[in-house]
Amino acid sequence: MPISAEQKEELTQRILDVTERQIAENGLAAVSTRSIARGAGCSGGSIYTRFSDFDDLVLAVNSRVLSRFGSILADLRESARNLPVEQRLCGMADAYLDFALGERNAWSALFEHRLPDGRSLPDWHRDDHYRLFAMIEEPLLELDPKLTPAQAAALARTIYSAVHGIVSLSIEDRLGRVDEASLRGQLRLVILALAAGLRQTPPSGSL
Amino acid sequence: MPISAEQKEELTQRILDVTERQIAENGLAAVSTRSIARGAGCSGGSIYTRFSDFDDLVLAVNSRVLSRFGSILADLRESARNLPVEQRLCGMADAYLDFALGERNAWSALFEHRLPDGRSLPDWHRDDHYRLFAMIEEPLLELDPKLTPAQAAALARTIYSAVHGIVSLSIEDRLGRVDEASLRGQLRLVILALAAGLRQTPPSGSL
Repeated sequence: MPISAEQKEELTQRILDVTERQIAENGLAAVSTRSIARGAGCSGGSIYTRFSDFDDLVLAVNSRVLSRFGSILADLRESARNLPVEQRLCGMADAYLDFALGERNAWSALFEHRLPDGRSLPDWHRDDHYRLFAMIEEPLLELDPKLTPAQAAALARTIYSAVHGIVSLSIEDRLGRVDEASLRGQLRLVILALAAGLRQTPPSGSL
Repeated sequence: MPISAEQKEELTQRILDVTERQIAENGLAAVSTRSIARGAGCSGGSIYTRFSDFDDLVLAVNSRVLSRFGSILADLRESARNLPVEQRLCGMADAYLDFALGERNAWSALFEHRLPDGRSLPDWHRDDHYRLFAMIEEPLLELDPKLTPAQAAALARTIYSAVHGIVSLSIEDRLGRVDEASLRGQLRLVILALAAGLRQTPPSGSL
């Protein structure tokens, strides 16, 4: 009996939900076609009528995670709109740390997952990262209103990457843990120093 | 026939050399006990008379890689000792990018390799990372001579992590490649802004 479009969509969502929950609970490395099929009550084959392969499914779940963090940044933008730009940037870095700590396995999966050699990230997923970088452009343009859109985009991505580096090398427990209060202090220190330096010597002239 | 201490040491070095070369050529994921044994002309079992397990061997190779980068930073320190602190910090960030690009697979293995759950990085390997962070303390102390040793160490680690984040999110090809000249420009911009901000508001007072 052919299944309806609605049933197809329901199955797609169920597979995504189960994969997301399994990654959150046990980490990406513990998730497999078999564990997902068992959790979703379907066959492995029917997963791949909805997703072209396992990587495609993981990317779809990772995009959900990015979009959840995007909503947090968007809310923050609303609630912090009257704060000085330095405080808004610090708030975003803090939110990144909160998210990484609070959704540890989901966050790790964003960077742990690797496509097979020669295959590049599909545009739809990459754009979900870019949308996050773009949230940082607005405060940067207040620090230096002469930044071109390309300069603002490049700098936003760089600052996002710097915050990511500070958070990831600390919480991955690989190099000795930095306690959370110190880590927040370090993030704040670096963001404030960066913002002061960008105000003092606006990079639009030199970039 | 029992083998001499000299033969044992020769085998240890040969296993390290082969593992290092195989990681450099094909990446960590492609290296196995079997490929190393074949390359070193010994049995898998004899590898594990020298190293307690595969992770231990990879960490030993990673420590060699860190120590090679440490020598580069030490040479830089000598040759740049008369340059302003900003230029010395930029030179170190540049050297990190050069190393990551030039020894791509070896560098990736430093961060790709994960110990099994519950096992933490041995001190001897962690210290090899710490020795690199420490190289950044000297220029930071020139920017803010009142930093305590603990403050200088924390800030050096944070700046190292920020540079690592900028380099790794760009060259891992995961989020769309940033061309090398732009990446160098971004690293320089962030380091100069940070240094200017740290000079303007020395963090020793607020940390």
